[in-house]
Order: sequence, then C-alpha cells, then structure tokens
Amino acid sequence: MTRIAVDAFGGDYAPEQIVAGALQAADQNGIDIILTGDQSKLESLVHGKPGSERIEIVHAPDIIGMEEAAEAVRSKPESSLVVAARLVREGQAGALVSAGSTGATMAASVLTIRRIKGVERPAITSLMPTRTGVALIVDVGANVDCKPNQLFQFAQMGSIYAENVLKVRNPKVGLLNVGHEPTKGNSLVKEVYSLLQTEESSVNFVGNIEGRDISQGNCDVIVCDGFVGNVVLKFAEGLADALFGMMKEEFTRSIPSTLGALLLKPGLRRIKKKVDYTEYGGAPLLGVNGVVIIAHGGSNAKAIQNAIRVAKRGVEQNIVQGIAERMA
Amino acid sequence: MTRIAVDAFGGDYAPEQIVAGALQAADQNGIDIILTGDQSKLESLVHGKPGSERIEIVHAPDIIGMEEAAEAVRSKPESSLVVAARLVREGQAGALVSAGSTGATMAASVLTIRRIKGVERPAITSLMPTRTGVALIVDVGANVDCKPNQLFQFAQMGSIYAENVLKVRNPKVGLLNVGHEPTKGNSLVKEVYSLLQTEESSVNFVGNIEGRDISQGNCDVIVCDGFVGNVVLKFAEGLADALFGMMKEEFTRSIPSTLGALLLKPGLRRIKKKVDYTEYGGAPLLGVNGVVIIAHGGSNAKAIQNAIRVAKRGVEQNIVQGIAERMA
Repeated sequence: MTRIAVDAFGGDYAPEQIVAGALQAADQNGIDIILTGDQSKLESLVHGKPGSERIEIVHAPDIIGMEEAAEAVRSKPESSLVVAARLVREGQAGALVSAGSTGATMAASVLTIRRIKGVERPAITSLMPTRTGVALIVDVGANVDCKPNQLFQFAQMGSIYAENVLKVRNPKVGLLNVGHEPTKGNSLVKEVYSLLQTEESSVNFVGNIEGRDISQGNCDVIVCDGFVGNVVLKFAEGLADALFGMMKEEFTRSIPSTLGALLLKPGLRRIKKKVDYTEYGGAPLLGVNGVVIIAHGGSNAKAIQNAIRVAKRGVEQNIVQGIAERMA
Repeated sequence: MTRIAVDAFGGDYAPEQIVAGALQAADQNGIDIILTGDQSKLESLVHGKPGSERIEIVHAPDIIGMEEAAEAVRSKPESSLVVAARLVREGQAGALVSAGSTGATMAASVLTIRRIKGVERPAITSLMPTRTGVALIVDVGANVDCKPNQLFQFAQMGSIYAENVLKVRNPKVGLLNVGHEPTKGNSLVKEVYSLLQTEESSVNFVGNIEGRDISQGNCDVIVCDGFVGNVVLKFAEGLADALFGMMKEEFTRSIPSTLGALLLKPGLRRIKKKVDYTEYGGAPLLGVNGVVIIAHGGSNAKAIQNAIRVAKRGVEQNIVQGIAERMA
C-alpha cells in the first residue's frame, strides 16, 4: 500500500499549501494521495487541477490547531490528523504526512498507529544541513526525560532509516556529548556510550561528537535526548534567521553593498537553499507501525511535496519492517 | 586589589599572544598585571615593550596542556595556572585570567580559590552574540548532571553578574526549555521553573525560552544545565564556521561574486565582529571566591586584552561580594 495519507488541515499554511503540495506530488511524482479534512473545501481546492485524478478525499470535520498538544487527539477523533492516522492503521494508506502540531502528530501516531513491538519510545527526527549534506538527528523533542536504552534504540532506528531511506551505506552514528572522550558526559550518555559499543548494537558507532561537529558532516546520524535535540534544532533555526537578518540589514545599508549583494545573489541563494528546511521535506517519526513524516509547521507546497516523496520512499523501503526486525 | 593574575602559558597561542594581550591591557588600559609562567621566557617577551612597567612576573615552571583536565591541577602545583590561582587566594591579585584548559581552570579555581559559601556548584558562563547585543548563558559545561537548586543558583549568580558587570538594569532571566509553557520540559527544568517563580528568587524571571529565542536577544541571562549549554555553545561556533565557510566558497566562485564580496566586505566584517568571541573577552566562572575569567582557548592578544578588562571590571564591581551576600 503506497498511498500516502496527508493531513490537509495541519500546518501554518493549511489547507491551501498542503493541497498544492499534494497536487504537485500527484502530478509530478505520480504518487497516490488521500487528503483528510473538510470535504467540500478540499474538493474546491482540488477540482480540475493537474494531479487531481490521483487524489482521494476523506472527510474529517475537526481541526487540531498548531498550538494544541497530545490531549487534542483524544478529544477530536474526527480531526483531519486522527482520521489520516486511522487510514494508516487500517491499511488504507502506507504513510501519514502532517505539518500540524508535532505533539499532536506524535500522539495520534502512538495512540492510533501504535508502537512497533519492542520499541520503548518512538522518536522524532530532523534533518540538519551540514557542510557535506545532511545529518539525521534523533530525538528532537518526543522524549525529554530519557533512559539509556531509549537512546540506544534511537541510534538503531536512525541508522536503519539512514541506510534504507537516505541511502547512506553503513551510516556513521555519533553520540552528542560535551567531549570526545568516552569518559565525558552526564550519567545518561555515559551509559548510552557503553551500550553502543557492544557488538549487539549493530550500528556503526563512531563515538562521541561535540556540538561543533554537528554542522561538519562527519556523522550521518546524531543521537541525543529530546530535550537537547529540541534546543539544538530550534537554536539552529533562530541562529540562521538572525544571521540572514543581519546580512539583509548590512546588504541594504549603502549603494555599493546593495550592488554587491546583487552580484552575490546566486551564491547566497545556494547557501539559503542548503540550510532551508523546505528542501528536506520533513523528518520521520521513528518507532511506530507505519511511516509518519512530520513536516515543518511553516511548510509551503514544495516542502509538502518533498515530505510526501520522503514518505513514499519510506513505504517502498519497508522501513517499518526493518525496524521491527531489528527490535525483535 | 585590582591586579590581575594572567596564566601566561594557557591557550593555543600561549605564551606569545597572552603576553601581547597583557601588554596591551597594561599600556592601553592602565591595568596592573602579574604574569605567571617560565620567568626567563616571559622576561624576554615583556622586556622593553610599552606597558612592561605595569607587569610583574611570577615564576611557574610547569604547564598544564590544553587537553589536560582537572587532575593536572593536583599533580602540577607549580604550573602557571595553579600559581596564578594561588595569587588570587593569597590576595595578591583580585582576578585570574586563563585561556587554558577550561576543566583545569575550573578545578584550579575551585580547589585553590574555593567556592563562595552557600554556592553548591560554580558555573562556567559564556557570552552569546544576539541580534541586540549579548546574552550570558550559564552553565556551559561545568556541571553536566544538575540538581534544580544548582540551576536556581546559576540564575541568581548570572543575574548579579549581568547587572553589575555587564551593566544591564534588572536583567531578564530565561530558562532554556523545549517550549514556553510552564508545564513544558524535563523533570529538572520543571522544578527549576517553580523555584524561579518564588518571590525569594529575586531575579527578573521571564519564563521559559526555546532554542530559537537564544539569538533573538530577548533575555540577558539564559539558564541551563552544563550539558545543554555546552552543546549549544559549541554548536554555535561550528554553525557559524560552516556558514562563513560556505560563504567563502560561494564568494570566490566567479568574478562577479568576488567583486560582490569585495563591495560587501565592510558589512560582512561587521557581522563577523558581532559573532566573534574575541570581542567579548571571555566569560566568568561564577561562584568562586575571586574573579575568574575563562578566555577562549584560541584567544589572540586582543581577546586576552578584553578578558583582562572584563576581569578588572569584575573586581571593581565587587562581583564576588555581591554573590556572597545573595547566597548568605
């Protein structure tokens, strides 16, 4: 089942940009999609557009807002998010894509699609741009108080995802820490270090990495607890914004600088593209019985299209089965 | 006693850049300095230079390397670092400046200069550039497994430092977390939140801040445990390096882009200056019985000069007494 269920009413620019992204994925990538949400609104957005022949609409009258959390999942069983998750559980779709509230998407997935047997805690991932490509960081917020074995599983799941979906051969897994030496760190990461060093860990563990290594691209998978990962991820967004903001200010300060910025435009655009989340199309929630891609709340059509493509690849590569086998 | 003891053999560019920075601080800022380290080497570097009349040399035959940690402090009591710390304990200097190993500087300070009564754990701080200025982040690595009361004290000490040395009136203190709501976070920060909300906290607590707020400049003091703070600090360095590296690559790619970069040079230089740690001159170790400024390992003469100026201000503003009174 490679149809992708897309929560059409999750995200800052829902439903317009979500539907536009779904249409692009249908039209340009030939992906079959189920959109969930208000039927008549969705019909009017889809009607007659290229790609519409690959799109099915399943009515869901409720909406879970961006600021709503896990609780909303129980109180709104007919929301576009929960209906989409149910389609995955029932086998009508192979994957769920949502740009809505991360907490709610996580909760809907765990409650409806359920955990893979043996997985202690599903983890939210994110793709961080690096000098050489991207690194998958696990966890970025699902679990803020972690046990060592949970981080150990994050390493295993991240490694399987990187290998099968990101197509990295023998992905290098690093443990985010305050120093490179095995003796460094808080009590949690010290225990995780020991677990990752055992032969049964079956991941290509390259040891501790420090904060400054994150952007260098010497790891494919970066493991940390969800508190640290969340702070790092949001800090990266804020810092990039601040730097680009400073540049904009400087570049419009005088006529020579404006001219200079004009000449540099293609280069600056390439850099922005490299650090732009819309290019990466969302990141998987790992550890549940279906492919779940959490797209950025601010996703535009292109980001949604990419998220749908990533979801499709996850389904085709049997990522769920891969994790289930490792956990067994 | 406003003389500043400077560990002349700590840092990547020791002793040359350290001595050069000390001479600049002596000559340009009229600060009296004691340099510790190999006497004849130091004499040859200081001799006849402007500022040398304000510099005293105290011989210390040993050196603690950048990669050495706390243990080295016990095994090398005659190292330039420990001798400098001893000068502070004995009242011959009011402050210690070192660009050497952070772990060793912390250990030398705690073992030799000792904790302020009532302080559970001294904390290492760092000044992070923001859109509007700088924010003091506490702790960035001294304490990787923290108790709530320790973070509470970090908030108090950071607030006193920001008010007295950075001259911020009623400094805004934020708690680094995964969300703004009081219910967010791991068990540690939830307890810290409650403590900071009490009336006795005597800090201007503005609530939780997220990673993306760090660079926005809406807080003067950011409180977190040393694991998170260390990762964030080093990540910022790595990310800035990666971004400037990408820019360099792009800006030398073609003739128009090289010309553009030339026109933008003043603006780019202003941005670099804003995010350049050498401008900020090191950050204090808070909670010990003397002013201790930990300069960046890669400090050049200018960074050392700035660190010495910061140390002098800490002494003049009685920061140690201020903290002692609050902790009593």
